Amino acid sequence: MILVMGSFRVAPEHIDALLPLARKVAVETRAEQGCIQYSYAQDIDDPALFHVSERWTDRAALAAHARSAHMAEWVKARAGLGFHDRVIWLYAADDGEAI
Amino acid sequence: MILVMGSFRVAPEHIDALLPLARKVAVETRAEQGCIQYSYAQDIDDPALFHVSERWTDRAALAAHARSAHMAEWVKARAGLGFHDRVIWLYAADDGEAI
Repeated sequence: MILVMGSFRVAPEHIDALLPLARKVAVETRAEQGCIQYSYAQDIDDPALFHVSERWTDRAALAAHARSAHMAEWVKARAGLGFHDRVIWLYAADDGEAI
Repeated sequence: MILVMGSFRVAPEHIDALLPLARKVAVETRAEQGCIQYSYAQDIDDPALFHVSERWTDRAALAAHARSAHMAEWVKARAGLGFHDRVIWLYAADDGEAI
């Protein structure tokens, strides 16, 4: 399984503008082939710090996601909202175990 | 690397009571040996849905965390706050790559 974990920050005054854009790209991404999970969440210590949690069946699915029109739209839109400190990691993992 | 990803829900009326408890156990856990990341965040679609993102150096560190006094305190405290739908997965992963 391919896991993506990471975070980004947005200017606090733009959180409310970012939220509908993030919801839109999340809905579109969850409909992609190979997407198991795609979530955005706000850190409990700082609502301007967003966590990204993604699970994909394979690298090809994630690569296709990166080339999607909705990702391009999201990248363009967020740039005007004080988007910064993007730190996203991709991991190749086993199938996991519930704990 | 050991990754832990998952989520849980809390009764909406208890979110405000859960937050300081979650912050406390997160601070205590981040001080543990082998803990690289330990974050709680609220889903952008539903603030009662919490996402868990953890990175650990190895399974032994995570096992020690599971036995910690602060985890026992957190498990006990959250039970009274409508804590439910806990779905947490452990993954054995590579060291990852920034994307």
